Amino acid sequence: MKKVDFSLYDNSFYRPGSAARRGLWYLVSFIFFQSYLFPFSPLKRSLLRLFGAEISKGVVVKPCVLIKYPWFLKVGENSWIGEKVWIDNLAEIYIGANVSISQGAMLLTGNHNYKKQGFDLEVYPITIHDGAWIGAKAVVCPGVTCETHAVLSVGSVAVKDLEAYQVYSGNPATAVRKRIIE
Amino acid sequence: MKKVDFSLYDNSFYRPGSAARRGLWYLVSFIFFQSYLFPFSPLKRSLLRLFGAEISKGVVVKPCVLIKYPWFLKVGENSWIGEKVWIDNLAEIYIGANVSISQGAMLLTGNHNYKKQGFDLEVYPITIHDGAWIGAKAVVCPGVTCETHAVLSVGSVAVKDLEAYQVYSGNPATAVRKRIIE
Amino acid sequence: MKKVDFSLYDNSFYRPGSAARRGLWYLVSFIFFQSYLFPFSPLKRSLLRLFGAEISKGVVVKPCVLIKYPWFLKVGENSWIGEKVWIDNLAEIYIGANVSISQGAMLLTGNHNYKKQGFDLEVYPITIHDGAWIGAKAVVCPGVTCETHAVLSVGSVAVKDLEAYQVYSGNPATAVRKRIIE
Repeated sequence: MKKVDFSLYDNSFYRPGSAARRGLWYLVSFIFFQSYLFPFSPLKRSLLRLFGAEISKGVVVKPCVLIKYPWFLKVGENSWIGEKVWIDNLAEIYIGANVSISQGAMLLTGNHNYKKQGFDLEVYPITIHDGAWIGAKAVVCPGVTCETHAVLSVGSVAVKDLEAYQVYSGNPATAVRKRIIE
Repeated sequence: MKKVDFSLYDNSFYRPGSAARRGLWYLVSFIFFQSYLFPFSPLKRSLLRLFGAEISKGVVVKPCVLIKYPWFLKVGENSWIGEKVWIDNLAEIYIGANVSISQGAMLLTGNHNYKKQGFDLEVYPITIHDGAWIGAKAVVCPGVTCETHAVLSVGSVAVKDLEAYQVYSGNPATAVRKRIIE
Repeated sequence: MKKVDFSLYDNSFYRPGSAARRGLWYLVSFIFFQSYLFPFSPLKRSLLRLFGAEISKGVVVKPCVLIKYPWFLKVGENSWIGEKVWIDNLAEIYIGANVSISQGAMLLTGNHNYKKQGFDLEVYPITIHDGAWIGAKAVVCPGVTCETHAVLSVGSVAVKDLEAYQVYSGNPATAVRKRIIE
């Protein structure tokens, strides 16, 4: 059988921004976002915007959040990014309004093609529509769209799109019930 | 269909302690608990007690532990709180004696009512009775009681009560075998 | 029914290295490995070798990696250890060549015998053969061997050996498809 050979790995096609911009963000992220020194959101919203993120008003950013590239991030009004959330956005991540990304959750945009000897990098955007809820320690996989008001329960892993107003659970996550808002 | 609107979110009913107390704990937690600078337990036991926790003798607190509010925490004799454990106790968490909370595990007390437009905060206590074992990277959800000597295996998610002397696995965790102590 | 009693816990048989060596590594790990201050691999490869690890050329070590005891670690050519990976190697961990341990994954070698009143420590080595891929936030349990080119998908938990050229998913992980490299 054929084997992978990481010496063939070539991600030179992938250009996520200048080295200066990435280096500066790495520092800002380390000091202001991945620490507990700045618990409040306004400064962090401003810093994200300064680095090209589109952050609507009222967005809450809790401590110890890891965001790979803010210039690939859009977040709608009043959405919450919880403590220790990991937004690993090698590609665009769109988060709508009134979305909760709960503590310890991960949004994952990078993948490798395991059918290729060079283990090729592949990046896919994530879209999380208005009112959706990504539970604590849940993971959203590359390319997934979470339709409006979908719920991904604690520790679950979304490998396919989540339908609107449905609650999902498990790894891989499957629909378990409807979400009915009174 | 109805939509959530986080501008309606109102957690003013929830009073977890004075701002001064929470602010001071935030600092102490950051320096002594969430770091690797203080690997040994005695100082951390004393600090937890100073902030209102009931910590019995012999309790082990490993490095990099995150405890939300120590005044909502009781831990019985000789129990272990592992490295990078996250005790997110917005409500009371009772841990009995001879309990092991293994590395990377999470105890989660906060929830949101996803059937409400205001995404209402709900907090529920967690009870983990004597001799239970919460495995590495496992999660115990709000309101769950783990009966005596229950085992939650690695990476599993307890969404319902765990029966005594039973081993649970999966997300959601289900009983897979009995625990028989020789 | 019988009960566990952690006052009977005795891990004195377990001798992972001198206190001086472990203390020094604790410090080096804290400063160089668990931080974001040293993003590049060459210095970290040298430090790992200095502490007894066998690290082949081209190994990539991302930031914020937690390695328990480097003297119990062997990594083959061009393998990757991703961001926030937790190598909890109380026992030997062998990682072959062209292996990817993706971000947030955990390799777990320590267990407790929950059938014993003393909750006896048990440690088992992990072997991950050439070309295998441990996905983001996945966990490999004590004693598991991942055969060549096995894949453990995002957030999955390997409790048994993984066969060669098979993709596994879930908790506990089960085989879901073959891996065919073009």
